[in-house]
Amino acid sequence: MNQFPFTPLVQRLPATIPFIGPETFERKTGRVFKARVGANESAFGISSKARQAMIDAVDGVGWYNDPENYDLRSALAQLYNLPMDHISVGAGIDDLLGSVVRAFLEPGQVTVASLGSYLTYHYHVAGFDGVSYGVPYRDDRNDLEALVDAVRETGSHLVYVANPDNPTGTWHTAAKLQAFLDALPKDCMCVLDEAYFEFAPDDSILPMLPHDPRVIRMRTFSKAHGMAGARIGYAIAHPEIVTALDKVRLHFNVNRVAQMGALASLGDAVFIQSVVQAVADGRAEYDALGRELGLPTVPSATNFVAFDCGTADRAQGILDGLIAGGVFVRKPGVQPLDRLVRVTVGSLEERVVVAEVLREVCKSH
Amino acid sequence: MNQFPFTPLVQRLPATIPFIGPETFERKTGRVFKARVGANESAFGISSKARQAMIDAVDGVGWYNDPENYDLRSALAQLYNLPMDHISVGAGIDDLLGSVVRAFLEPGQVTVASLGSYLTYHYHVAGFDGVSYGVPYRDDRNDLEALVDAVRETGSHLVYVANPDNPTGTWHTAAKLQAFLDALPKDCMCVLDEAYFEFAPDDSILPMLPHDPRVIRMRTFSKAHGMAGARIGYAIAHPEIVTALDKVRLHFNVNRVAQMGALASLGDAVFIQSVVQAVADGRAEYDALGRELGLPTVPSATNFVAFDCGTADRAQGILDGLIAGGVFVRKPGVQPLDRLVRVTVGSLEERVVVAEVLREVCKSH
Repeated sequence: MNQFPFTPLVQRLPATIPFIGPETFERKTGRVFKARVGANESAFGISSKARQAMIDAVDGVGWYNDPENYDLRSALAQLYNLPMDHISVGAGIDDLLGSVVRAFLEPGQVTVASLGSYLTYHYHVAGFDGVSYGVPYRDDRNDLEALVDAVRETGSHLVYVANPDNPTGTWHTAAKLQAFLDALPKDCMCVLDEAYFEFAPDDSILPMLPHDPRVIRMRTFSKAHGMAGARIGYAIAHPEIVTALDKVRLHFNVNRVAQMGALASLGDAVFIQSVVQAVADGRAEYDALGRELGLPTVPSATNFVAFDCGTADRAQGILDGLIAGGVFVRKPGVQPLDRLVRVTVGSLEERVVVAEVLREVCKSH
Repeated sequence: MNQFPFTPLVQRLPATIPFIGPETFERKTGRVFKARVGANESAFGISSKARQAMIDAVDGVGWYNDPENYDLRSALAQLYNLPMDHISVGAGIDDLLGSVVRAFLEPGQVTVASLGSYLTYHYHVAGFDGVSYGVPYRDDRNDLEALVDAVRETGSHLVYVANPDNPTGTWHTAAKLQAFLDALPKDCMCVLDEAYFEFAPDDSILPMLPHDPRVIRMRTFSKAHGMAGARIGYAIAHPEIVTALDKVRLHFNVNRVAQMGALASLGDAVFIQSVVQAVADGRAEYDALGRELGLPTVPSATNFVAFDCGTADRAQGILDGLIAGGVFVRKPGVQPLDRLVRVTVGSLEERVVVAEVLREVCKSH
C-alpha cells in the first residue's frame, strides 16, 4: 500500500527477521524451555570481575557511554599489540557487520559467503540493497577455494567467512586461511568472523601481526565471555576502515554497563580458560551422545555441536521433537547443512535434559 | 586514497562525529570535570526499582535480549492505551532516528528541520545520503509556519521537530503542533522528538489518541528516567511504520539490562515525578543565576537551560571559560542560537559549582 512514503527498498524488503528469540516460542506455547541451547549463549556465567564491574556501572548509568570506547579499545590494543586505531567497538558483531556492509557495498553489488552462513550478515546485505552470492559448504566446512572462485566470477570486493564456522562448528587452519587470503583478488576485503575463536585450536587462529589490511576481524563478548545480553563486540581492522566505520556507526550504541563489563572480563583470562575447558567437556559429552544415538556430531571448535541427522526431514523432525520437549535449538535451513541440528553446549543440568529429550525423540525419528 | 573499496558515499562523508563526549576532553586535559552538565544527562539517579531490576539482570546477561522487546512494548502499549504494534523499541532515540531516516529517505531526498536542531538526526540524514534543509529558529523556537513552507518548497516527505525543543528548551502547545500537522502536505511524515516530554507542561503534549498516522513520536529512558548509559528508547508510530522499522533495525541491539531497567522504571511514576520536580527547582535556580549575571535564560520545558550571552563571541568565551573551569557544557553552533550556552540542570552540588564558575567567568566576559 502507498499510505506511507517508504523508500522502494524498504517496501520491497521482506517483513522477516533473521532470528526468532526463544521468548517468542515461549509466549506462543505458554511453556518455558527447560534448556535454552539454541543461540550459542554461554551456560557458564560471567567473570566475577565482570559481574562486579557491571553492578557498579548500574549506579553510573545516568551518564552516556563514552562514544569512543576509549578504555576498552586501549585494553584490546594492548592485548593484541596493535595501535588502538585498529579497533572499532560495536553493539555486538551484528552491529559491526551492518556498518561494514554499509561502508563497502553499493546497492546491487555482490558479496560472497557460504550458503547458510550467518543470517544476520545477509540481513544487512539485503537491508542495504546488496546481493548475497552463496557458495555451498563442502564436507560441512567453508569451501575456501570455491569462495575465491565465486569472488572472481562475481567481481565481488567483500567476502564473509566465519572461522571457526557457525552453524557447522568446523574450522580451517591459519595456513589454509592465509592461502585463501593470498588467492583473493587484491581489491577484495575479507570479513573474518571470529565470534568463537576462544574455543578453537591455536593453529586455526590467523596471526594478529603483521595485520593484513584486507582482513576485518570480528570478535565478541557474547560467547566465551558470557555477555550476549550486554551487546558488545569489536572489529580489528586497518585504521582507515575504522575511520570509515566511524562515519556511519551509531556512536552512542554501546551501553555503559557493557563497556565496564567487557573491560573487566578482558582482564580475567583464568575465567575464560575455565569456560573453554567446560565447553570442551560438554562437547565431548554431546559427541558421545551422538554416537549412542546414531547422530554423528560434526567436529566443532565452538561452544556448540551440530548433530548430523542424515536427512533434512529427519533433522526437522528431531528439531521439532526437541522444541516440543522443552529444548530450544535451531537448525540450518539450506542444503547440505539442513540435515544438521545445532545444539549449544549447555550447563551440566541442561545437558542432562538435552540427552533425555533427544533419546526420547530418537525413538520415533 | 583508493586502497580500500569504500562506497563513494562513505569516501565523501566527513570523518566527524555529532557529539564529542566529555571523556574526550578529560583525556586531553588530564582533568576530570567538576560538573558534567553538557549532555542533558540526569543528575537525579534512577528509580530504585530500575536499579534493582538492572542489578538482577546482570546475572542473566549470558542470554540475548528479547529481540521483540515484548514485555516493554506491552507495558508501553498499556500505558498509552494503544495496541503494541504501535511501539518500536531501539537503543535510544539515536538508533530509532537512523532507522526512520533509512525507511523514508532515498539518496538525494530532502528532509526539513530547524537549523541547529539535533545533530544526530542530521548525521543519519547525511549518512544515508539524504539532504538536510534547515529552517532558522525564530525567537528561539521552532518556526512551525516556516517549516511547513519549507516542506512545500522542497517537496520533502519527512520533517523533524523536537517538542520540547533541544537545544533551546522551548516548546509549542499541542494546539499549535496540531495546526502544524494539519498544514503539512498529506504525504509528509513528521518525526516528533519528545525526549524531554516528562518535563513539559501538559498542554504541550500532543494527545496520544486518536493516533495520527503521519506522526512518529520518539521517547527515551535517557532523560527523566536517568538511564542515558543504558541506551533504550522507543517510537510510537503506525503499525505499518513499526513493520518497516523491523525490516531494517538491528534486532539484538537493545541490551537485556536496559530492557529490564526500563520496564521497572516505567512502573515508578512517583520517582519520575520527583525528578521532574527537582529539575523544575534547578531550572528556577539557573533562571535566578542568569538574572544575576545579565545572562537571561530561555524559558525551558526540559532538564536544561540555555543562557543567552547576547553574541556568539561572548557565548564562545563563556563556554570556553566554563570548560576551563571544570564545567562540561555545550552550545549550539549556528545562528541565531549560537549566542546560547546550554547547561543541564545538575545536582545541588553541581549547581553550586556551575554558579561559582559562571560568576568567575562573567567577570572577564
